[in-house]
Amino acid sequence: MSGNSFGQAFRITTAGESHGPGNVVIIDGVPSGLPLSVEDLRIDLQRRKPGQSKIVTQRKEDDEPEILSGVFEGRTTGTSLAILIRNQDQRSKDYGNIKDLYRPGHADYSFDAKYGFRDYRGGGRSSARETTVRVAAGVVAKKLIQQAFGGQVVGYVSQVGDIRAEIADPASVTLQQVETLPDGEPNIVRCPDYAAAAKMIELIDACRMAQDSIGGAAHIVATGVPAGLGEPVFDKIKADLAKALFSLPAVLGVEYGIGFGCVTMRGSEHNDPFTSQSKADGSKQIVTRSNRHGGMLGGITTGMPIVLRTAVKPTSSLPLPQETVDRTGEPATVSTKGRHDPCLLPRFIPMAEAMVAIVIADHWLRWKGQYTSTEP
Amino acid sequence: MSGNSFGQAFRITTAGESHGPGNVVIIDGVPSGLPLSVEDLRIDLQRRKPGQSKIVTQRKEDDEPEILSGVFEGRTTGTSLAILIRNQDQRSKDYGNIKDLYRPGHADYSFDAKYGFRDYRGGGRSSARETTVRVAAGVVAKKLIQQAFGGQVVGYVSQVGDIRAEIADPASVTLQQVETLPDGEPNIVRCPDYAAAAKMIELIDACRMAQDSIGGAAHIVATGVPAGLGEPVFDKIKADLAKALFSLPAVLGVEYGIGFGCVTMRGSEHNDPFTSQSKADGSKQIVTRSNRHGGMLGGITTGMPIVLRTAVKPTSSLPLPQETVDRTGEPATVSTKGRHDPCLLPRFIPMAEAMVAIVIADHWLRWKGQYTSTEP
Amino acid sequence: MSGNSFGQAFRITTAGESHGPGNVVIIDGVPSGLPLSVEDLRIDLQRRKPGQSKIVTQRKEDDEPEILSGVFEGRTTGTSLAILIRNQDQRSKDYGNIKDLYRPGHADYSFDAKYGFRDYRGGGRSSARETTVRVAAGVVAKKLIQQAFGGQVVGYVSQVGDIRAEIADPASVTLQQVETLPDGEPNIVRCPDYAAAAKMIELIDACRMAQDSIGGAAHIVATGVPAGLGEPVFDKIKADLAKALFSLPAVLGVEYGIGFGCVTMRGSEHNDPFTSQSKADGSKQIVTRSNRHGGMLGGITTGMPIVLRTAVKPTSSLPLPQETVDRTGEPATVSTKGRHDPCLLPRFIPMAEAMVAIVIADHWLRWKGQYTSTEP
Amino acid sequence: MSGNSFGQAFRITTAGESHGPGNVVIIDGVPSGLPLSVEDLRIDLQRRKPGQSKIVTQRKEDDEPEILSGVFEGRTTGTSLAILIRNQDQRSKDYGNIKDLYRPGHADYSFDAKYGFRDYRGGGRSSARETTVRVAAGVVAKKLIQQAFGGQVVGYVSQVGDIRAEIADPASVTLQQVETLPDGEPNIVRCPDYAAAAKMIELIDACRMAQDSIGGAAHIVATGVPAGLGEPVFDKIKADLAKALFSLPAVLGVEYGIGFGCVTMRGSEHNDPFTSQSKADGSKQIVTRSNRHGGMLGGITTGMPIVLRTAVKPTSSLPLPQETVDRTGEPATVSTKGRHDPCLLPRFIPMAEAMVAIVIADHWLRWKGQYTSTEP
Repeated sequence: MSGNSFGQAFRITTAGESHGPGNVVIIDGVPSGLPLSVEDLRIDLQRRKPGQSKIVTQRKEDDEPEILSGVFEGRTTGTSLAILIRNQDQRSKDYGNIKDLYRPGHADYSFDAKYGFRDYRGGGRSSARETTVRVAAGVVAKKLIQQAFGGQVVGYVSQVGDIRAEIADPASVTLQQVETLPDGEPNIVRCPDYAAAAKMIELIDACRMAQDSIGGAAHIVATGVPAGLGEPVFDKIKADLAKALFSLPAVLGVEYGIGFGCVTMRGSEHNDPFTSQSKADGSKQIVTRSNRHGGMLGGITTGMPIVLRTAVKPTSSLPLPQETVDRTGEPATVSTKGRHDPCLLPRFIPMAEAMVAIVIADHWLRWKGQYTSTEP
Repeated sequence: MSGNSFGQAFRITTAGESHGPGNVVIIDGVPSGLPLSVEDLRIDLQRRKPGQSKIVTQRKEDDEPEILSGVFEGRTTGTSLAILIRNQDQRSKDYGNIKDLYRPGHADYSFDAKYGFRDYRGGGRSSARETTVRVAAGVVAKKLIQQAFGGQVVGYVSQVGDIRAEIADPASVTLQQVETLPDGEPNIVRCPDYAAAAKMIELIDACRMAQDSIGGAAHIVATGVPAGLGEPVFDKIKADLAKALFSLPAVLGVEYGIGFGCVTMRGSEHNDPFTSQSKADGSKQIVTRSNRHGGMLGGITTGMPIVLRTAVKPTSSLPLPQETVDRTGEPATVSTKGRHDPCLLPRFIPMAEAMVAIVIADHWLRWKGQYTSTEP
Repeated sequence: MSGNSFGQAFRITTAGESHGPGNVVIIDGVPSGLPLSVEDLRIDLQRRKPGQSKIVTQRKEDDEPEILSGVFEGRTTGTSLAILIRNQDQRSKDYGNIKDLYRPGHADYSFDAKYGFRDYRGGGRSSARETTVRVAAGVVAKKLIQQAFGGQVVGYVSQVGDIRAEIADPASVTLQQVETLPDGEPNIVRCPDYAAAAKMIELIDACRMAQDSIGGAAHIVATGVPAGLGEPVFDKIKADLAKALFSLPAVLGVEYGIGFGCVTMRGSEHNDPFTSQSKADGSKQIVTRSNRHGGMLGGITTGMPIVLRTAVKPTSSLPLPQETVDRTGEPATVSTKGRHDPCLLPRFIPMAEAMVAIVIADHWLRWKGQYTSTEP
Repeated sequence: MSGNSFGQAFRITTAGESHGPGNVVIIDGVPSGLPLSVEDLRIDLQRRKPGQSKIVTQRKEDDEPEILSGVFEGRTTGTSLAILIRNQDQRSKDYGNIKDLYRPGHADYSFDAKYGFRDYRGGGRSSARETTVRVAAGVVAKKLIQQAFGGQVVGYVSQVGDIRAEIADPASVTLQQVETLPDGEPNIVRCPDYAAAAKMIELIDACRMAQDSIGGAAHIVATGVPAGLGEPVFDKIKADLAKALFSLPAVLGVEYGIGFGCVTMRGSEHNDPFTSQSKADGSKQIVTRSNRHGGMLGGITTGMPIVLRTAVKPTSSLPLPQETVDRTGEPATVSTKGRHDPCLLPRFIPMAEAMVAIVIADHWLRWKGQYTSTEP
C-alpha cells in the first residue's frame, strides 16, 4: 500500500534514504539457477555512480553491493534475494540549512503535507539515491531476460536542451556505442551520436558554470522480446513500462513508438502493415513493415523492438538562489551548494534501463505462469 | 497477475468482451454510506456511449447499468460493489471476415501470440467496449472524491490533427463548457475552445468521408485535490496516473505539467517558486506561483491542479483497404466496414476522467489508512 | 484491501449479497484453452444447493450460473472469466424483525461496528450465499488441476456431534462414495462411512426437531498433487489452505496430517521416514512411509496426499428463542424462523473442496511461472 | 508471488537464510511519528534468541538488529522501514553431511522438488532463523496497536506433551506471568501455570536426554482490539490470523475460541448471548456473556478478546538416527548433531505473538483507510 514494491512475478521491494545507513532491495520471484555475482551488479552500478565524470555530481559513493541472501554457490536459489548498498558520503551537515525550507521542484513540501515531518538530509526517501538498488535489481532482470530469450535493454541520451541526437534506428544502438567513444574513451554523456554528444557536454558544462541545470530526453529500447507479453486490460505492458519510467525521479513525460507524433496523423499513415519473414526453419515470422507502434499493440508485445522516449526535467537543486517559503509560509531564499548533477540524463540511463528490464522480466514470468502449451 | 484489476484501496476488477453477454466490474474498497444510484452511473455512460452524435461510431448500445451488489437503500454498504452492463448490438457476423486476418494497429496478432487463439468478434477483450465498466466505476470514484474533499476531474479535447484548442488555463475549464455549446446544443467534440471545436468537427468529418481516421490529444485536469497524496517511490501518483491513462486503448503518450517541454528548459526557468496565500482562517496556504510541475512533486500532490495531457492515436479500424497478412503469414487485404469512430477523442474523455478519478480515490483512501492523527 | 479477492495467479474476486440481485465472481488467470461449460458448473452447484435433501435448508434457489465472459466456442480464452448467479428466493420480509437485533453467533454486531449500518436481509454479504460463486470458481480450478496433473480434491463429512466416521485411509475416499449410497440413493450427509452416515442423519433430524443445530467436522483430501508446490515462508501452501478454509463461514479450526495429535508426540514417533518406490520408467519416486505430515513439509507439497480436517460450528440461526440485545444495547429475544440448515456439514463439503482446489490451482500456476527448466 | 511478503496495509517482506550473511525485513505502511529504537526491537529478539536457557538450542547468535531506514530522530518517517539482523554462528561445516540426504520432517526434499537445488546449510530459507526478522517487525506492530488503541498480544505455552496448563481465563494472562516466575527467575518454558511449567521443563529435559523431541501447544491472546476489524469474505481476520500462524514453521493446527470443541456442540449451547455494559460515559458497550466465539464473528472482531490455540510439532531434527533416503532414492540414515531445540514451544511464543500483532496492525490500518467518518 505504501508503494515500496514494484512488479508482480518479478517483484522488488526497496527501503533506504539518502543519508541513512544504506539502501536495500528484496527481489522476489527470481527463478532458481541463474548465475549471479557481486561483479555482475557492479557493472550497472558503476554506470549510475556519482563522480564517474566531470559532468555529473561529484559526491563520493562507492556503491558497493552486498548480496545478503538468495544466492548459493554462485547461483540464485529461487528464494528472496536481498542486496544492500551502504551509504558512505553522508555529509548531513550540508542539509541543516534546508531543514525548514521548501526547495522549489523538490518533494520537501509534499512530504511534509503527507507525513507531518521528514528526513530532510539530502531528500531522505525522495532522493534519487534510492535508485541504486533499482539498478542492482535491474541487473538481475537483465540477466534473466538475456538467458531466457536473448532480450536486451539499451538506453541512450537522445536530447539535452536543444541538442538532438540523430539516430536513424533506435533499435540498432549498442551498449558499446552508448558507453564508449570510437577512440576508446568513455562516452560520458551516453549519447551514441558522437557529434551531438560533444555539443551536449559543452551545453551541460555551460549550465554548470552558470550555476544552473538543463533538461533532456532519453530513449530506452528493448530488443529480442518475444510476441505475447503483457496483459490485455490494466496491465498492458505499455502501462507497466510507463509506470516504471514515471516512478523515476524527474520524469515528466513518456511516449512509445510514434508517441505524441500520432496526434496529427491519419490512420492510414499511422498503422504499421503486417508482413512476414521466412525463419531459418522455413516457417514464417509475422512482423510489421514499420514500427510506429513501438513493439506493442493492444498492450501486448508484437516481437518488434520496444521503443520508449522519456522527458527528464532539469535538476531542481541549483546553486543559483531561488525564491521560496519556509514551513510557516514566510518568504525565503534557498540555494543548493555544490555536488549536484547539472544534467540528470547521463546517470538516468542505467536507472531507466533497469526499470524497463524489470517490467519485461515480470511480464515474461507472468506469461510463463499462465500459458499452458508451449515455451517461448 | 492477469491484469484485470486496478488500484489498491479503491480497486476495480473487470471482465467482459465486445460481443459476449456483457461487461462487469467489481469495485472493492468503497467506504460505506456513499449515496449511489443507477442514475448517477448513467451520466458518464451517456458521455461514453456509441451513437451519441454524428462524429462517433453509429453502433447502438443502451449501456444500461445494473447494480448487482454493494448498495442498500441507496447507499453503499462498504462491501464489494458489482455493476453489470449487458451488450446489445452484437452483430458478430460482421467479424467473420477478420477471423483469420491480423488488422493493422489492432491486438489480433499479439493476442494470438499470447493465448494461441482469440475471441475475434469485435476485438473480444481488447475492444474498447471494456471501458464501459471503467466509466461506471469512475462515477463512484468521482462521487467519493467530491464528497471527501470537493475534488473534481474534468477532461477535454485539446487537439485533433493540426487543430489545437487555445485554453489559457486548463484548470479553469468546466464540465459545462466541455459538454455544452453557448447556444445550449451539445458540444459533440468536447473541446471548450468553440472555434477550434467547429474546425475539429469539420476535420473529423472529412476523415470519415475519406474512409480514414485522425489522432488527437486530450487534457485531463483534477482540481481540489489536497496536498500529500501519492507514495514516494514506485507508487508516485504521477506513475499511477500514467499507468491509468496508458491502460486505455490507443494512448501512445502521457505527460504532466510542462511535460516534454522540460527537455529544453533550464532549472532556473523550470522550477515553480513556492509562495503562500492567506486562508479564510488567517493561516497560510503554501502554493506555487506557476504550475509547470502539474500539481505533483516527488510523486506526491502539492495541492495545485493536476494537469495531464495524453496522445491518442487515430482509430486503427479503417474502411480503407489495408495491407496485412493472415494467420499463416500469407499477404491479405483487410478493411473494416462501417460503424467505427473516425476520431477516438470525443468518447475518450469520460474514459480518461474515470481512470484519473479512480487513481485519486485510491490514493486518498491509502492516505487515510496510513495517516495517524485521527484515531478510530 | 477489502478482501473480496483470493489467490494470486489463479485469483477470484467476488461480490453479492444474500438478498440482492445476485452473486458474481471474476476469475483471473485461467489459462486459455480449457474446455468449460455451464453444465460443468452445475455439478458442484447442485451439491451446494439449498433444498437438495430433507436435512438441509428448504430455501428455494435454482443457482443457475451464467458465464458472462472469458469463454469462447467452449474454451477459456485466457482473459477474465465472470460467472453470475442470480438470487431468486429473496423473501426479504422474513428479515424485518432482525433489522435492529444482533443475532448470537452472527456477524450482525461486528458488521455494524465496522460499517455503521448493514444490509440485514439474510445476513447480506456475511451470508453463506456468497459461497455459490466460490463453488463455481472451484469447478474451474478442479478442471485445471485435473487437466494439468490429474489432481483431485474430495471432501467428506467425518463427524457430526459425537458420531465419527471410521475411515481407514482418507486418501482412498472417492467422490462416488461421498455422493451415493451403495443402493444408488443419494448420500445426503456426505459421509462415506454409511453406518455412521445413517446415525448422523438421525442426529441432525433430532436437532432439527428440537429447533436446534449441531456442529461437525469435515475432511478434505487432495491427491495427485506434484511435489514442489507452495512457497517457503509466508505463502506456505499449508498457510494458504488454512486461510482458504478459515475464510468459509462457521469454520473454527483447521489442522492437517496428524494435526493437534502432534502435541503429545515425540519427534521419533512423529517424523515420517522417507523411502523410494520404483516408477514405471525404472526411476525412483521418493515418498514417505506414513503421512503424518499431511502431504506438506516446510510449507511445500511432497507428493503425498494433502489431508485437511476442519471444525464447523453448529448453525447460529436457531428457531429456539435466544437472548440478545438490540442496537441500543437493550435486552431482547430473537429466534430465526424456518429454512435454516440444522447442520452445515453436508453443504459445506463442496465449498471446502472449491477453496482447496483454488489454492492448489493457484500454487501450480505460481510454480509454473517461476520454475525455469521443466514441466511437472 | 513467491510469498516473501505478508500483510497489505502493514506489509512485511523478508529475505535471508540460516547460514547466509543475515536476514532482513522491509516493513511498508508504518505510519509516521511512531517512536522506535533498536532497544525496542531487542526485547522480543531476546525472547526468541537461541541459547537463552538450558531447554533451548545452544547455538550462539547475538541477534543484534540494525535499523537501515525509515526512522529519523527516533521516530518512524512513514517510509519503508528496513531491519537487518546478521548471522554470526554460521558453522556451515556441520551441515556437509546432510547435503544429499533428506531429513525426515524437514523441507529438504520438497525444496529440491521445487527449486532443483537448495542451500542445505541449516535448512537455508526453510530454517526458523527467518523468523528473527518477523519478531522484529512484530515489535513495530505491537507498538503501533498499543499506541493506537491499547491493544496487547500475549502468548504462552499451554501444553507440552501430556502436560496441560490450567488457565481459567486466557485473556487474563500477563507478559509478566509468561516471562517471570514468582521468585523473579525467568520462566524459561513460558507457561503461566507454574506447577505445569516445572513438569514441562522436566519432560523437555527427559526428551533431550533421550536424543528426542516433544510437541506442544500455545495460546495467543489479543486484548483491547476494537470491534469492527476484519473483512467479510476472504480476508476474515480469523483467516488472516490462521494464515499468519500456519506460516510459522512446525504449526500443524490452529483453532480459535471453542475451536474443535464446537464439533460436538449444539447451537443453543454454542452461541454466545449478547448483552451490554455501561461505559464510563454512560453509554452502553455491547459484549457477549461468554467467549466461545474467540472475539470474532463473521470474520470481524467483536471487541471481546481474540483467543487462538496452535499445535506445534516436535522438532524434526533429532540426534537419534532416523531412516531416510538420499537424493537418488537410496536408503540412508541421518542424525542431527547437537544444538537443536528439544521442544520448539518456548521460543515459538514471541514468533506467534509477532504474527498475530502484524495481522491486527494490518487490519487496523485497513479499517482506517476505508472508514469514512473522519475526514483528512
